[in-house]
Amino acid sequence: MNENKIATDDMNYDKILREIYKEVSPLFNQGKVVQYIPALSAVPASKFGMAVCTLDGDVYTIGDTDERFSIQSISKVYALTLAFKMVGEDMWKRVGKEPSGNPFNSLVQLEYERGIPRNPLINAGSLVIADILLSQIPDPKHEILKFVRKTSGNSDIQYDNAVIASEKITGHRNMALAHMMCSFRNIYNPVDDVLDVYFHHCGISMNSIDLARSFMYLANHGVIPQSNEYIISNSRAKRINALLLTCGLYDESGDFAFRVGLPGKSGVGGGIVAVLPGKLSVAVWSPALGPSGNSLAGIQALELFTTKTGMSVF
Amino acid sequence: MNENKIATDDMNYDKILREIYKEVSPLFNQGKVVQYIPALSAVPASKFGMAVCTLDGDVYTIGDTDERFSIQSISKVYALTLAFKMVGEDMWKRVGKEPSGNPFNSLVQLEYERGIPRNPLINAGSLVIADILLSQIPDPKHEILKFVRKTSGNSDIQYDNAVIASEKITGHRNMALAHMMCSFRNIYNPVDDVLDVYFHHCGISMNSIDLARSFMYLANHGVIPQSNEYIISNSRAKRINALLLTCGLYDESGDFAFRVGLPGKSGVGGGIVAVLPGKLSVAVWSPALGPSGNSLAGIQALELFTTKTGMSVF
Amino acid sequence: MNENKIATDDMNYDKILREIYKEVSPLFNQGKVVQYIPALSAVPASKFGMAVCTLDGDVYTIGDTDERFSIQSISKVYALTLAFKMVGEDMWKRVGKEPSGNPFNSLVQLEYERGIPRNPLINAGSLVIADILLSQIPDPKHEILKFVRKTSGNSDIQYDNAVIASEKITGHRNMALAHMMCSFRNIYNPVDDVLDVYFHHCGISMNSIDLARSFMYLANHGVIPQSNEYIISNSRAKRINALLLTCGLYDESGDFAFRVGLPGKSGVGGGIVAVLPGKLSVAVWSPALGPSGNSLAGIQALELFTTKTGMSVF
Amino acid sequence: MNENKIATDDMNYDKILREIYKEVSPLFNQGKVVQYIPALSAVPASKFGMAVCTLDGDVYTIGDTDERFSIQSISKVYALTLAFKMVGEDMWKRVGKEPSGNPFNSLVQLEYERGIPRNPLINAGSLVIADILLSQIPDPKHEILKFVRKTSGNSDIQYDNAVIASEKITGHRNMALAHMMCSFRNIYNPVDDVLDVYFHHCGISMNSIDLARSFMYLANHGVIPQSNEYIISNSRAKRINALLLTCGLYDESGDFAFRVGLPGKSGVGGGIVAVLPGKLSVAVWSPALGPSGNSLAGIQALELFTTKTGMSVF
Repeated sequence: MNENKIATDDMNYDKILREIYKEVSPLFNQGKVVQYIPALSAVPASKFGMAVCTLDGDVYTIGDTDERFSIQSISKVYALTLAFKMVGEDMWKRVGKEPSGNPFNSLVQLEYERGIPRNPLINAGSLVIADILLSQIPDPKHEILKFVRKTSGNSDIQYDNAVIASEKITGHRNMALAHMMCSFRNIYNPVDDVLDVYFHHCGISMNSIDLARSFMYLANHGVIPQSNEYIISNSRAKRINALLLTCGLYDESGDFAFRVGLPGKSGVGGGIVAVLPGKLSVAVWSPALGPSGNSLAGIQALELFTTKTGMSVF
Repeated sequence: MNENKIATDDMNYDKILREIYKEVSPLFNQGKVVQYIPALSAVPASKFGMAVCTLDGDVYTIGDTDERFSIQSISKVYALTLAFKMVGEDMWKRVGKEPSGNPFNSLVQLEYERGIPRNPLINAGSLVIADILLSQIPDPKHEILKFVRKTSGNSDIQYDNAVIASEKITGHRNMALAHMMCSFRNIYNPVDDVLDVYFHHCGISMNSIDLARSFMYLANHGVIPQSNEYIISNSRAKRINALLLTCGLYDESGDFAFRVGLPGKSGVGGGIVAVLPGKLSVAVWSPALGPSGNSLAGIQALELFTTKTGMSVF
Repeated sequence: MNENKIATDDMNYDKILREIYKEVSPLFNQGKVVQYIPALSAVPASKFGMAVCTLDGDVYTIGDTDERFSIQSISKVYALTLAFKMVGEDMWKRVGKEPSGNPFNSLVQLEYERGIPRNPLINAGSLVIADILLSQIPDPKHEILKFVRKTSGNSDIQYDNAVIASEKITGHRNMALAHMMCSFRNIYNPVDDVLDVYFHHCGISMNSIDLARSFMYLANHGVIPQSNEYIISNSRAKRINALLLTCGLYDESGDFAFRVGLPGKSGVGGGIVAVLPGKLSVAVWSPALGPSGNSLAGIQALELFTTKTGMSVF
Repeated sequence: MNENKIATDDMNYDKILREIYKEVSPLFNQGKVVQYIPALSAVPASKFGMAVCTLDGDVYTIGDTDERFSIQSISKVYALTLAFKMVGEDMWKRVGKEPSGNPFNSLVQLEYERGIPRNPLINAGSLVIADILLSQIPDPKHEILKFVRKTSGNSDIQYDNAVIASEKITGHRNMALAHMMCSFRNIYNPVDDVLDVYFHHCGISMNSIDLARSFMYLANHGVIPQSNEYIISNSRAKRINALLLTCGLYDESGDFAFRVGLPGKSGVGGGIVAVLPGKLSVAVWSPALGPSGNSLAGIQALELFTTKTGMSVF
């Protein structure tokens, strides 16, 4: 019933992507490649890839779209989808649906709200999701990877073990969050197991085309358009999109909604993926980050994309 | 270009509104009418009005839609629109665009971020908007009322002076916010003048039909559809909608996006108004509030509305 | 029974004060004279006065001890003494007795603890004290001045109206605190009246000798030694000293207890006064402040004083 | 030079202790024995022991002073003394000296102040102390136990392994604190090792007489009076006493200074120990705790003790 029907016949995506690439390239050396994960800090700041997948089956690309990168927090969306599918609305007893405000606030919030994270896209919330998966299925790491391969249609997607090992060494903040939630009895499995699942899905490596494709079920009412495989109900796909819009870009979510106007999710590896429900998904990768930890050129590229195409949920 | 084109020919709004009224009425006595504004505390909890205005010019109503109520925080959207029109992007130097998180957090946030409120829809942000208007025009109270009359098409809309007087007596928290922002030099006009503007626009009284109509410019790319009068650019209308979606329902904004899926704004008088860009606006009034200060039956009515019609920005 | 009897016959206070003056003078240009109160910002950073008053009736001085300065927050102790005398233990229903922690925390604390300030020596607490006095006596400003003249034995001590006027203009933060406490119903009198009392007592001007003398009742079990006039009970004098030790130097109270080891109170005018119960009081004035808002040379002078004399409550 | 010389010849401690026991016994069933450490939750609330040790070598006791209890946080003072002895003033680069304010504030404080705990007597601060000891000596657990045996003069004092095992299972909050400080690089040793030291010293078991004796070095200028063995300098003993006074009783430190007027330290096992420098130490044990986690009857007993004897540092 609700279809964002857009006259795209005359939309020249290739030209638009070329313009975007040119306009955002001056930003590549204005951000900073993530430093706290050693295995990622060596990625050149000049990398840039952007891919658009339409529901009609077309794919448009520009730049380094063959190159894999670490998707990091973007992976939280796959884990969330799996957990939502398994436990349904019960999930919301253990994790909220509200934006989290200021990053400074994260721990005091967790304490004030008795170990219930604000939403499943912040780290604390994603740890709860990992804990839920551990209680539901024997091997969440295997299931998440299977899910990503299925939704992207690329069976060759892998965990990057160097990144995962690197995160385990430096992940004290996530361990702190997990232990605090244990103390409030909102983590049931051993903390090390929870972090192992979490660090693994953050360590998935894929390219921009895979990434755009793997989000198509959220642009297509819960069904993978390539294979027609049902993932989740239309209602739940919408709800995940709502969470992406309000909480998907850390403390820049409001600004992203304001400037770009699409549900999206970012990762500190420099990737961002967004969807226009009923129409398309778009992924961009540019490793240099701005102060909020989101890809500087990536956000700008998506803003130009929605400006030039006139697309937006608003 | 971006049009949410929906086949509504066969949509029976009257029937849908009748069903909604019946389904939400058990909630009337489960919430609490606002108490801290004495002039509002006597409104019967059983009042309910709901109005839908489509871009095609149709209006559908049910319940007490002739009755005026105090729109309270909903009025922040009018003030924001006026200020955005006047000062443009400079506005964002003085107020943010991010959801505010936990209500408990409001003052510490203001302090941590040196007197810059998180967004223009929380009280602190709206006080900055009032201050901006005072610096721009000689009589903001007159202009805001004029704006509401124009966008709603009802020249009889008034300030409710009893409510305004009542708020001035109890408004110590807002005075505290204003003085704190003064101390950070983010309020330039006398605090009493700023609060006078703020309390006035919160004290506007109108009915559900007026309210739905007055938001049509946000559903119609910045233009009043009735009169074809230009208010703001399409790009800015989208941006205000983005703010409504991420910040419009206090600490229940995420939940509202999740359940209802439309940009909207609520007030403690029990009103909520939402828009589906390219299609319609919908207002509901039910004075009994839930724990976050939003109308309990109002949110439920809007959730049923988007479920039954299949409408959502997602 | 509990007497800190010290063999002081052989203590050469004059020599000690001379040594201190010499040792602390390099610090005069390392701090910053308070800027936010215009009337105080012009005081030369090189001013220094120090006075010791013993229970035996001796007075030892060095430097600019004839010169008056604005005692600012030190005055909170007089107001507290008066209120404690009047309402007794009931006072602690409206204000706490605990150190306040981080300054950043002040407003969130006030909110978290429902408008009850942590202690009567932070600004919020002192505003509650002013409110208590306004409810108890017709003219608190008159009574506080009378109290200071009596305890110091100097009937010529005055309010500095230029300073008071200056604070009223810039006192937005204190107004914010007062309004917030109004909203929690912990301020009963009009906010302007409360602030008028508060700004007045902060605007008392006196010299170091007056200041040291005026605290002798706290060194002498609640009795003014010069006149033998009873002010408060021994038990209450001890309790005020306990508050001074735990809360008297803003967020440097722990450090002051650690380094100096005496109950004391500071003001942003650069004054600090401390007492050794059973023995003496000591006042120091040096307007250049360190990062916590306490006199840099003043703290150092008091640390040297207790080191050289071997005095301390510990 | 500084001696709290008190005429105690005529002080009848035995009578005073008998009166205290009688007066506080109604409080035994008004508090709650600690629940979160299973091994401690079974201790009867009616237990009560109190011991006074004077510098003259006298010991006065009443109640269950032969019975051992878990000293918990009191042990932080021994660890602090050892670390202060070893690294001196450098310690204060890694831990502050200020009271911590509201307990709710602990984690946000740690974040706001970049992993530097407010003082060495809160859990976070004591974890830093454990980390310092691990970097300084091969076997901190052994050294701490040796220190306690030496200062108490009782070579039979032991770790209670059941309590230690019990804490390790439930200590998620402390693990969270340790990991957060790791993330700020203020913990250098493996978190498990740090917690092992911390949980061990908290699991020391001793009776009230041992406890009072073991704090005599703080009442005696840094020297064990029984053996005349030098522990720390007079200046550092005073400084530790200052920390006890401002930070020793969690969020009731101000109230304890106000009511009791002595430097002291409490533990959730129901023990409290306090010293009057130059005169005596006093320990009390009563397992039922008040809302701040301190022994209800214990605080009352110490208030009665200082009231009846007229002793106080103020």
